[in-house]
Amino acid sequence: MKGGMKLVRAILENDRFASLTGIKLVKVSEGYALARLRITDKHLNGLDIVQGGAVFTLADLAFAAACNSHGQAAVAINVSISFLDATAGGTLSAEAREVALSSKLSTCVVRVTDRRGKLVALFNGTAYRKKETLAEIRASRGSAARTGARKPKRRAPERRGQRA
Amino acid sequence: MKGGMKLVRAILENDRFASLTGIKLVKVSEGYALARLRITDKHLNGLDIVQGGAVFTLADLAFAAACNSHGQAAVAINVSISFLDATAGGTLSAEAREVALSSKLSTCVVRVTDRRGKLVALFNGTAYRKKETLAEIRASRGSAARTGARKPKRRAPERRGQRA
Amino acid sequence: MKGGMKLVRAILENDRFASLTGIKLVKVSEGYALARLRITDKHLNGLDIVQGGAVFTLADLAFAAACNSHGQAAVAINVSISFLDATAGGTLSAEAREVALSSKLSTCVVRVTDRRGKLVALFNGTAYRKKETLAEIRASRGSAARTGARKPKRRAPERRGQRA
Amino acid sequence: MKGGMKLVRAILENDRFASLTGIKLVKVSEGYALARLRITDKHLNGLDIVQGGAVFTLADLAFAAACNSHGQAAVAINVSISFLDATAGGTLSAEAREVALSSKLSTCVVRVTDRRGKLVALFNGTAYRKKETLAEIRASRGSAARTGARKPKRRAPERRGQRA
Repeated sequence: MKGGMKLVRAILENDRFASLTGIKLVKVSEGYALARLRITDKHLNGLDIVQGGAVFTLADLAFAAACNSHGQAAVAINVSISFLDATAGGTLSAEAREVALSSKLSTCVVRVTDRRGKLVALFNGTAYRKKETLAEIRASRGSAARTGARKPKRRAPERRGQRA
Repeated sequence: MKGGMKLVRAILENDRFASLTGIKLVKVSEGYALARLRITDKHLNGLDIVQGGAVFTLADLAFAAACNSHGQAAVAINVSISFLDATAGGTLSAEAREVALSSKLSTCVVRVTDRRGKLVALFNGTAYRKKETLAEIRASRGSAARTGARKPKRRAPERRGQRA
Repeated sequence: MKGGMKLVRAILENDRFASLTGIKLVKVSEGYALARLRITDKHLNGLDIVQGGAVFTLADLAFAAACNSHGQAAVAINVSISFLDATAGGTLSAEAREVALSSKLSTCVVRVTDRRGKLVALFNGTAYRKKETLAEIRASRGSAARTGARKPKRRAPERRGQRA
Repeated sequence: MKGGMKLVRAILENDRFASLTGIKLVKVSEGYALARLRITDKHLNGLDIVQGGAVFTLADLAFAAACNSHGQAAVAINVSISFLDATAGGTLSAEAREVALSSKLSTCVVRVTDRRGKLVALFNGTAYRKKETLAEIRASRGSAARTGARKPKRRAPERRGQRA
């Protein structure tokens, strides 16, 4: 795995909401990513079907990996998602492919399929590519990020900032 | 609270993914709902901003409450979401309003704002309204659902079914 | 060409806004359609690039053909479109493929490409499938539709109706 | 009317596809625009309801005016549109309001209503704001643009360029 991919992977493995959800990043390469989620009871909604938020979060992680795969930091600005079929449980896969890339924008299509290969959801995402690389953002966090000690005040300007 | 709203609330309180995320349904009335999420470390992504999936799930719960508020079961078919601002943490609110309703479709706009009232995300959702009421779907689950004992085979046709 | 396809084609050839725009329906089969538009000065916006509405209308005609290709009348309820590249003029092609179909909904992806095959726009559309077939709707128009004599009052209930 | 608004208006009045469609820009101010379209036979589709492309083009012109209203050139990157009701003809109005603005992005909500004020379509658009102002883009077109004499070769690099 190239150094760039290692960093993308490290940052996504630090995604606490994806971890809470139980999502695994399986593969990432330039403009591509694959993520998986094994559905359990905790992913169900009040009608016992997989909650839309769980499907979205799975697709979003694959999208984040694909659009950040060039090393330049990218943040989601728009997503449209179609829920095509209620799922039978089991493991869901989300495969993201970048379909357009410019200096400022990345557009990805993510297909979410169930264990039988049936299309469960279709997700189109657009990300804004910042000036900073992922490495620069990482470095600016300093030892706080590396040790896990949080210093919200220092990070505040960045977290408050406009996305683009 | 009217009987119909009680049932909507009961079903949404049985939404395990929303519970895992920490979302609270604050209010629900015909064509309207308000939900809240207090942001903690577990909602952050690898770059320490609130994960898009957490924002989506919050908005989606408010949407589900609003579009099911008439008592007829409704499932999301399409959502578009724009992420407008990275958030400062604190508590996020999602307010869903139904802007169009026909016998088969409900369309809602959900505004997600931060504690200062700043618009963080804008979510437009379309739901398909099934023939069954929420009460009928509840009843068809029988004692299994009431006791928590799961019998996946019995529920299979429903869970596998097309959404619409 | 099968009878069903002939009817789809006849109805789309009666689409006056698509005609005004200069769009040609090239192919239609079950769940598939291809349409083309030769860009001329009249399709440009105030900055001399192809107007988004012209690109949308092209994609929408292909979508309408694909989702009506089964003979059951279908109307668009939601579309998301990403404009990926300003175009060099020439001829644009829109290719629609149905990616999901249930008794009530059809979901199509439409790719708009330029003469060099470059992806110019990506369009995802969801249509609601009515109870009526295209043939029934045609027949209900009676001789008015066949002769071109318009009787708006008689058609009013239908034109005012909810889409779904 | 301020100088900036005059330029926005001049550029939009040079929008040939909007003119072909018959759209009028009624008002434009910072972050706001109103456009109108009187529906005639040429706006109907093969089923005699207003073609989605005509509704989209109307909303898109209001969007373009609102997101360009600050004088910085902005181009649409993503739009989602929900078609909520088939229309009774008459005059449609599209009112665009900017709901978020950063140095690089503008997000607008456009409501399309019929003559009775009924919501016909809801349009959410995101535009990328270029470095150039509208005045600079105008000036770079030189006398060609002012006289209407087209020199496609000189403009080619710009028209071929990535949108962002």
